Amino acid sequence: MTTETKKIKLTLPDGGLKLEMGGSFSEVEVAYETCGTLSPERDNVVFICHALTGDAHVAGRHEGDVKDTGWWSNMVNPGGGIDTDEFHVICANILGGCSGTTGPSSINPATGTPYGSSFPHITVGDIVTAHKMLLEQLGFQKIYAVIGGSFGGMQALEFSVRFPGFAEKCGVIASGASMTTQALAFDIVGRDLILNDPNWNKGDYYGNGAPRTGLAQARKLAHITYLSGDMMKEKFGRRLRMQEHVENDDIDEHKKFEVESYLDYQGQKFIKRFDANSYLHITRAMDEYDLEADFDSLADSLSRTLSRTLVVALSGDWLFLPKQSEAISKALFKAKKDVSYFCLTAPAGHDAFLTHVEELVEVVANFLTRKPAGATGEVSAEKASDYAKLISMIPENIASILDLACYDGALLRRISIQHPEIRRTGVDMDTDALVKVMRDGCNAMLADVDAGLKNIPDNAFDCAVLSESLQVMKHPDKVLRELLRIAPVGLVSFPNFGMWRIRASLMVHGRMPKTKQLPYEWYNTPNIHLCTIRDFFDLCEKLEIKVEKVEYLSTLKLSKLLNFLGFKNLGSSRVLVKIRR
Amino acid sequence: MTTETKKIKLTLPDGGLKLEMGGSFSEVEVAYETCGTLSPERDNVVFICHALTGDAHVAGRHEGDVKDTGWWSNMVNPGGGIDTDEFHVICANILGGCSGTTGPSSINPATGTPYGSSFPHITVGDIVTAHKMLLEQLGFQKIYAVIGGSFGGMQALEFSVRFPGFAEKCGVIASGASMTTQALAFDIVGRDLILNDPNWNKGDYYGNGAPRTGLAQARKLAHITYLSGDMMKEKFGRRLRMQEHVENDDIDEHKKFEVESYLDYQGQKFIKRFDANSYLHITRAMDEYDLEADFDSLADSLSRTLSRTLVVALSGDWLFLPKQSEAISKALFKAKKDVSYFCLTAPAGHDAFLTHVEELVEVVANFLTRKPAGATGEVSAEKASDYAKLISMIPENIASILDLACYDGALLRRISIQHPEIRRTGVDMDTDALVKVMRDGCNAMLADVDAGLKNIPDNAFDCAVLSESLQVMKHPDKVLRELLRIAPVGLVSFPNFGMWRIRASLMVHGRMPKTKQLPYEWYNTPNIHLCTIRDFFDLCEKLEIKVEKVEYLSTLKLSKLLNFLGFKNLGSSRVLVKIRR
Repeated sequence: MTTETKKIKLTLPDGGLKLEMGGSFSEVEVAYETCGTLSPERDNVVFICHALTGDAHVAGRHEGDVKDTGWWSNMVNPGGGIDTDEFHVICANILGGCSGTTGPSSINPATGTPYGSSFPHITVGDIVTAHKMLLEQLGFQKIYAVIGGSFGGMQALEFSVRFPGFAEKCGVIASGASMTTQALAFDIVGRDLILNDPNWNKGDYYGNGAPRTGLAQARKLAHITYLSGDMMKEKFGRRLRMQEHVENDDIDEHKKFEVESYLDYQGQKFIKRFDANSYLHITRAMDEYDLEADFDSLADSLSRTLSRTLVVALSGDWLFLPKQSEAISKALFKAKKDVSYFCLTAPAGHDAFLTHVEELVEVVANFLTRKPAGATGEVSAEKASDYAKLISMIPENIASILDLACYDGALLRRISIQHPEIRRTGVDMDTDALVKVMRDGCNAMLADVDAGLKNIPDNAFDCAVLSESLQVMKHPDKVLRELLRIAPVGLVSFPNFGMWRIRASLMVHGRMPKTKQLPYEWYNTPNIHLCTIRDFFDLCEKLEIKVEKVEYLSTLKLSKLLNFLGFKNLGSSRVLVKIRR
Repeated sequence: MTTETKKIKLTLPDGGLKLEMGGSFSEVEVAYETCGTLSPERDNVVFICHALTGDAHVAGRHEGDVKDTGWWSNMVNPGGGIDTDEFHVICANILGGCSGTTGPSSINPATGTPYGSSFPHITVGDIVTAHKMLLEQLGFQKIYAVIGGSFGGMQALEFSVRFPGFAEKCGVIASGASMTTQALAFDIVGRDLILNDPNWNKGDYYGNGAPRTGLAQARKLAHITYLSGDMMKEKFGRRLRMQEHVENDDIDEHKKFEVESYLDYQGQKFIKRFDANSYLHITRAMDEYDLEADFDSLADSLSRTLSRTLVVALSGDWLFLPKQSEAISKALFKAKKDVSYFCLTAPAGHDAFLTHVEELVEVVANFLTRKPAGATGEVSAEKASDYAKLISMIPENIASILDLACYDGALLRRISIQHPEIRRTGVDMDTDALVKVMRDGCNAMLADVDAGLKNIPDNAFDCAVLSESLQVMKHPDKVLRELLRIAPVGLVSFPNFGMWRIRASLMVHGRMPKTKQLPYEWYNTPNIHLCTIRDFFDLCEKLEIKVEKVEYLSTLKLSKLLNFLGFKNLGSSRVLVKIRR
């Protein structure tokens, strides 16, 4: 896939591009790239926002370049996470950058010299405004998706709330609604190093030697935050660097560890391609960004979005923490928006969104694709019949439903067919299974039902389902309470430990029972909190939960007979209950 | 408590104090403080090693100083974690420091000017050698304990292995056997900032303006690593600093956040009290320290120690990670040494060992004290009888025993009385209960038995006990395997779900059973993997575990009768089994 960077001079309104913090640009040039074919309906544009020091060259290979491909070419390629066979991808260098788009090193048309110290204070709002102007001038009044990682995720999020409806979907990866205090602190020290470089000259250093030492130091520091501690250990450990690299005994007396060579290399590589003023302006825009700042809450701020949003956190990321992504998804739940949330196992740390994308590709692909899901979620006839009974118990005229421990969405898929108008969300902790839920227009949330429901606000849903999973919970009582905190109505099904076969097994054989519904050994069973129907009703009474309807389910003939005779606790192998606060 | 810093010129051997990396000192002066009364037997000395930039003023208040107390006065005080009513405490400024002990800013007797660039390369070994010479010259050939936090923990550990038997006990808090790669990286960048300061002059800057900018920057960077992200957020969040602090619009354009004021303040405070050369030499000694380096393994290196060791990690510490402390304790287990391990909840981060010491005080106090434990671990007559039966099943002539899920050590205490010669270690996850185990000379390890036994090496013990806890395990089969990996013999007791009362309860009432041994409700019971005696034997067979002896225990008369008649699975409410690989 051959790509090339193009440049476009934006057509600006009278008075130029006005900036949020005051000032304006009379001219703005934007560097951008495209790949993948635009559909005849012009409805398949995916706009990618790059991270702090990225550029427009997101994918493919530049003509004649045999060495490098675009910075996200492992994500953006034919058949990839952002599939160039399906989508027309656009990526642009950000305002304030130094890779083709107007930035501090660009010539100020008013003076004919580089902006330097006269470059105005820019914000994330200004950056995405320039993005939108680019898209409009390329002829798009609407795009399919906006997506980005790290600082790019902030831009994607801001794009979706600032221009509601412009992007149908929004992907926010390894990012946050603002920087953490710790991340601010690192940036503050980093900027301080540039400002204290003897070459700094208040930013007007062009042609007189740039503040390269400070910029390299800032980059070295930042690079530590891009990797997890585990990844640093794996890459470098405490290994010493080869002695032949020592050029000057006197200075290199303090240089010993391989990790130092790595940081030096990163610093030196960076100063060849990046401008110190751009670094200062962009990191400041990032640090000052706070989606919540002018609103009562993050949910209020995010209530503006009309995009279906995907939020992805990386477990080993300590620059943008998973809890920052959780906060975004929680706020979107609160604002009753379509949101999917995944925290992927990423021992490599923040940079994993660029370097270790295998799982991320699956998540993004399933979120973006409009191709049909195909045959997933097949179940047995017994389960299909149980699901049908459950679906018939869904209250009428509800707007949203949550399926807890939904696995690959077999139940949600059946709900989709009968109730496509209901906003459907599934929760599970199996990433591979859960990604499939996002096809067919359902939302997915990766979470442990036992512990993770704290990220779903009160009354976020109209109905919540817990199908065949009560007994695997560490705290069934708490989960029931959580379920009725999140939704006013719950549909719960579980196996009945009071069924005749189970009683008999223990009574006669003196062994822990095993049945079709409970096939495990006592020591490895996930069913750690079994109960009988009577036990369940007792708990509901204790928790002041109303039992509105009960369906007793049985398969064996003797069970059916017992049920028919009214011995429900003996006859039913499983039970389906509709509960209410 | 009034304290004062004293100075002593060490009497050095011929040729001076020879250094590990070559070179020597012809003169060494050491600044030190003492508090607490020395016992007539001179056997109550606790030597405290200070952290990176600390000094000898560990506790109490200097005469006339109304503002500051010693840096660890919340730990070292009458009745405290290091109780000055019980112990005679000594703390000395380290070699290479700048608070009274010979360091780069001291006058080099050979030249009459400060050492500066001529200060030799020092190591942690050199630092603790000077410590030991100090102690000997104060008249001690043996001390009760050496203890330190952070870099002080490294010194304490090195002291205990380099001078085996000199210190009876050793405390290593929030420390490691070497620095992580990430911590190295931060130090490397920090030193780079000093070396690039225009005032650096290769270290010979005394009298000509010190490299203060670089030193302040290095300190600011280091300070970020001393706090957890959560603590930074709590202290400063994204709050902006008051406008009145802005003195110079031009420079302060980039200064906005409160966290920046904090870092600036820390940097400025530091350069008033610390010397850049000391910072370089001490951080390098710390970075180069690697207890494992000259040995096949950490266990080999630690096999030299004769001290009873306490290792304490802090949960929120990301400079010295809990897994580094785990590695030390695991190696000590492997070397069959007396070791206790705790990971304390410390959301504040690394500095919590100085600032949030409440729990740490309890752990250290229980580890150090020689005062008797008093009446703890009282149990019911039934339990006492069960314990006696268990103790009678301990194999003869064993050297060590491990009690898994030991709580406050009620069983260990009984073993102590009958078998004081056996090395006794308890594992539990309740910190408050577990600290008590360290009294009576037992070791304690804070861990979740279900997940945490990976830190105990194969065959570390001769016998392992799991008393009345099998059924609360998430993975009873794995725990049994772990138990017989750690020790060749296991003593396991558990409640019998096949007992007649339990069977009857389910059979007749159709409810999950509740008995004296199993008093919980189905939804909140910790007993998540119950089994009958038959089930247990089946599992042993499957895991190829030999059942060597079984004691059937019962209290009720009918149960006793059933047992007498041979219906063990019906009659026994609990059972005690001796198993073997």
